[in-house]
Formats: sequence, structure tokens, C-alpha cells
Amino acid sequence: MTTAAAELEKTADPILQTDFVKEMVKQMRAIDSYGTYDGWPVERILAPYIKTKDQRREIPVIGDPDDETLSRVKAFYNAIAVLIEKECGLMAVPMINITHEGFGRALITVGKLVVMDRTLRDVHRFSFDSLSKMKDEADKVLSVALEIVGKYPDVAGL
Amino acid sequence: MTTAAAELEKTADPILQTDFVKEMVKQMRAIDSYGTYDGWPVERILAPYIKTKDQRREIPVIGDPDDETLSRVKAFYNAIAVLIEKECGLMAVPMINITHEGFGRALITVGKLVVMDRTLRDVHRFSFDSLSKMKDEADKVLSVALEIVGKYPDVAGL
Repeated sequence: MTTAAAELEKTADPILQTDFVKEMVKQMRAIDSYGTYDGWPVERILAPYIKTKDQRREIPVIGDPDDETLSRVKAFYNAIAVLIEKECGLMAVPMINITHEGFGRALITVGKLVVMDRTLRDVHRFSFDSLSKMKDEADKVLSVALEIVGKYPDVAGL
Repeated sequence: MTTAAAELEKTADPILQTDFVKEMVKQMRAIDSYGTYDGWPVERILAPYIKTKDQRREIPVIGDPDDETLSRVKAFYNAIAVLIEKECGLMAVPMINITHEGFGRALITVGKLVVMDRTLRDVHRFSFDSLSKMKDEADKVLSVALEIVGKYPDVAGL
């Protein structure tokens, strides 16, 4: 690591070093087929997830959300599934279904156990106030999921 | 009921009187927005589900399956979910996800319990050798689902 890079790391937001953010970046790179994100800093790669309330309100919720938005939603729940898997050692499978006009359902299953089940609305506007709010949300899902797995290990192991 | 209708009922295949076939017809009518099926006999409404091996083989599995095929797949799993719900008294929710080129996953959840989890392949060709084979398939899913619910009633009740 060069001195400049080390310097940057020291001053950088510690959130960038968390498992969640690292996994999010991995997920985003996985859908970046043309290598557009190569060399981009983490904040820039995850920037589309961060929007102010006003920015969100400006996005029309008419029609179906575009593919980029959908893959961002998927990347978010994929990252959470990976973290669940890391923590409990069992395969966690995400499933996102956007039915119409930005409505849908997001599930994560471990074995025969549903560890997360969310109704999605206004997917067009899928975003968070800040990176730390985004991580909070993921942490919440993660802890609930692990609690359920801990409570019903036999169902999760099926 | 007129004498002719009663006569027809007597000679008709008893499978047409089963809960499964009745529910399938209901599901097909629900997606029939233009009332095309009005006055059609049950066999004709369910005919698209029945194909011989040769007929299936003739359907190309290139690209994404068309909307009609997808809604038929959904109607089939919806019908099974309704039967599960009727039997166990708990809400059963189907979720179908076709990812690409006719591949996908079909889930039915009851509470936090996954009572059916299937990988779908070659959805373009989704069909059965006969109405009775189709019902057998549904019965199999139904009995496995009810067994799982019976085994983990607390997870199913979440």
C-alpha cells in the first residue's frame, strides 16, 4: 500500500471497512459487466443508494422501475444473504419479485426457514438517507434473521 | 340443473369434480380478463396444460417464455397454495420467479415456513401428460406441504 493510500484509509469513514459495505461493493462489481466501476472509490460505487428525501420525491413512481434500480435492490438483499450465510454457516437464498409498478416482495430463506420477508413498495425510489442508515437497515435484517435461525435450527438445516 | 347437464355430469370424468381441478378453473378464469373462457367446458380451459411428449419437444426453449405461459405456471402454483390454505387453515403464499431463459424458482410459504421450493426449468414447455398426471403432481406437493406444516406448526404459525 502506498503512503497516500494508507493515509486515505486512515482518514476514511470506518463504515467503509465493514463487512456489509465490502460485500455491497462486491455485489455491485458483480453486476458491472463493462467494468465501469474499475478504479472508482467505494463511495462513488454506492452513491446511487444514497438519496435525500427530496431527491427521492423527485423520482416518479409510474410504470415499472428500470433494470438498474432492480439490480440495485437485488444487490442489497444479496449482500444481506451473504452476511447471513457467513454468520450462520448455512446457505441463505434471496428471492426478489417485483410484480407491477414497483411493488413486490423480497424473501431470504435458509433451508425451509423464511428469515426475511418484506413487501417492497415504490421500488423506483429504493435508497437510503446515508451509508450508515443503509448499514443499519442491513444490520437489523441480519440480526432478526440470525435470531430466527437460532430459534429454529432444525428448519433452517432442512 | 337441466336433464342434459345432469346427464353430462354423470358421464364426465370424476377428476373434473375434484377440488384441484375446480380451483385450477377458478385460477384460469381469474386471469381471463376478456371473458374468453366463458361457457367453455373445463377440459378446454385446462387444455393448454396438457401436452404430449412430442408436443412439448416441439416448443423451442430459446429466450424468455411468453406471458401466457408464465401466467399458467403461476395459476398452477396459486391453485396448490389455495388447497394448502384450505387444508391447514393458514395463509399460503406462492412466489414465482422466472430469472432467464425459462429458468426460475417457485416457492410456497406458510408463515415463516417454506412448504414448497422448486427449481423451474424449460418453463416454455410447462405442461403435463394428462389432467390426472397434473392432479397427481399437485397432490404430491400438497401432501408434502401439509406434512411439513404438521411437523413445524409453530414456524408455520409465525
